[in-house]
Amino acid sequence: MTEALTAALVVDPFAAMNAIGLVAFALVGSSKAIREGFDLFGVAVVGLVTAFAGGATRDLLVNRIPLALQSSSEIALGLFGVALAIGVSAVFETADDHPIALCSDAVGLAAFTTAGAIVATEAGVSGFGVVTIATINAVGGGAFADILLDRSPFILLEDFYASCAVLGGSTYWLAVGLGGSGSVAAAICAAVTVGTRMAAVSRGWTVPTAQVLRTSP
Amino acid sequence: MTEALTAALVVDPFAAMNAIGLVAFALVGSSKAIREGFDLFGVAVVGLVTAFAGGATRDLLVNRIPLALQSSSEIALGLFGVALAIGVSAVFETADDHPIALCSDAVGLAAFTTAGAIVATEAGVSGFGVVTIATINAVGGGAFADILLDRSPFILLEDFYASCAVLGGSTYWLAVGLGGSGSVAAAICAAVTVGTRMAAVSRGWTVPTAQVLRTSP
Amino acid sequence: MTEALTAALVVDPFAAMNAIGLVAFALVGSSKAIREGFDLFGVAVVGLVTAFAGGATRDLLVNRIPLALQSSSEIALGLFGVALAIGVSAVFETADDHPIALCSDAVGLAAFTTAGAIVATEAGVSGFGVVTIATINAVGGGAFADILLDRSPFILLEDFYASCAVLGGSTYWLAVGLGGSGSVAAAICAAVTVGTRMAAVSRGWTVPTAQVLRTSP
Repeated sequence: MTEALTAALVVDPFAAMNAIGLVAFALVGSSKAIREGFDLFGVAVVGLVTAFAGGATRDLLVNRIPLALQSSSEIALGLFGVALAIGVSAVFETADDHPIALCSDAVGLAAFTTAGAIVATEAGVSGFGVVTIATINAVGGGAFADILLDRSPFILLEDFYASCAVLGGSTYWLAVGLGGSGSVAAAICAAVTVGTRMAAVSRGWTVPTAQVLRTSP
Repeated sequence: MTEALTAALVVDPFAAMNAIGLVAFALVGSSKAIREGFDLFGVAVVGLVTAFAGGATRDLLVNRIPLALQSSSEIALGLFGVALAIGVSAVFETADDHPIALCSDAVGLAAFTTAGAIVATEAGVSGFGVVTIATINAVGGGAFADILLDRSPFILLEDFYASCAVLGGSTYWLAVGLGGSGSVAAAICAAVTVGTRMAAVSRGWTVPTAQVLRTSP
Repeated sequence: MTEALTAALVVDPFAAMNAIGLVAFALVGSSKAIREGFDLFGVAVVGLVTAFAGGATRDLLVNRIPLALQSSSEIALGLFGVALAIGVSAVFETADDHPIALCSDAVGLAAFTTAGAIVATEAGVSGFGVVTIATINAVGGGAFADILLDRSPFILLEDFYASCAVLGGSTYWLAVGLGGSGSVAAAICAAVTVGTRMAAVSRGWTVPTAQVLRTSP
């Protein structure tokens, strides 16, 4: 399993990262919708939106038809994540802060940050463009799902969530700039993103507010 | 009138369906804004957003400049729907569940599902892509208007609304796959969508929630 | 300063208007986020979204990769606006209706209306397309930021805000249609937009609601 994944990462880092992200985020989004008591159609929509909206926005930004609308394997992976969420919820109840939920989310965040950075680099945008597209790919699905559910996107409220994607995307851009191959840059980017996210969750890191600049004793 | 419409459907199904959808959804959106007490500018904006946002998103997804920004007849049809809503509201008050409102909405839903399926099929996307683009064309305008009005898109709360578009889009894709001409597929798609929607409204159909899977006696 | 600006306006009206709009809207958006107590990352995100979302939507609508993702000077201007907001907030507290906030906003509105009208005219869309793209360029960033903050976009609630952009964009289209050069049209468009906006603020102009049509004595 691990060997197959390593091989896939070396041969086509984008395909591997994209597949991992799709399943993880469809699972996270569907689980959220199940907890909110949505019907099965709503569960599938929220799960697929969480999985696809970030990548579709990425594709629009680099001016191409979204992959999700062209490839049948994308939708199969998304539906697999939705089915996984329904199966898991049928067996035991998982809260928003359950370790499985937090891990899936961190893994999806890292995978999509990397997938976005790869696509953006290939499209030839600026360094800011690479970091922005990587971040939008990573947090766009969750943010769009929250907007559909009429709540403020959690990425703006949660410290060190989008920041991890910004950090990972910057690392990818740096690694490529320093001459690293795409596979090496992808591995570093994914590791930095998932590492900072898990550390932020377990240690409760926060980002300072602008008020600190004013309140000197 | 009916003959002219039939002729138009055979000659150019997209143009006919698109025109019907634009007027119907501009009427529905503007009426909603009038009931909320918006000023005339707001009424026009909400009406035009409801009419155009779904098709514009469809056009972005298949990577072309939105029709609404290129063709003057599109905006004329949208403004006609807005004027219709203002005229109707000046004569008598219509509630959200008035038969005229429900019928206009069901007709617009069916027309835009068909228009979206036609454009998506021409763009050569996958079967999932056809269904997704048809659904986004049909429900995107209403959902975007709701987001602008800061409420959860009703399509996620209302049972059997977006589901009707999904069903209609799948029918279109099937009909084309089975060798049906574009006009025949369009007629079947529109009939299935408007039929299931009207049946769902009059009989109060609902979609089961994921909880039913867990609650076995 | 004024001479340099005039020269820039004549040489490249788009670049001048775009730069002014980016700094003004990044300042307005970041100030809003600081007042809401966001952390520094959130302040930067809201500021950059306010500055870039309108132009990015404009670029998507005319089917090109957003400028903000390609040019490094765009991001530099946006970050300059964010830094300005943090600096200003460190010195003194500014309310939403502070003259500086209202002026920056009116200037950004006029600059982006003009920038959008220029891009749309070059893309060869219809008259309605020019006005729509100019308006989306001008109000899209603020509206998108409000959606992220989970509130109804103020542009739908505030009288004579988006209306000023519609008026300015129509003026640009008229001026070009009457044979005016791009620079002259840009100057007139910016003047009309900022003029009507400042007049609306200082005199409390409102747009009539559809109800007035019904309530005759």
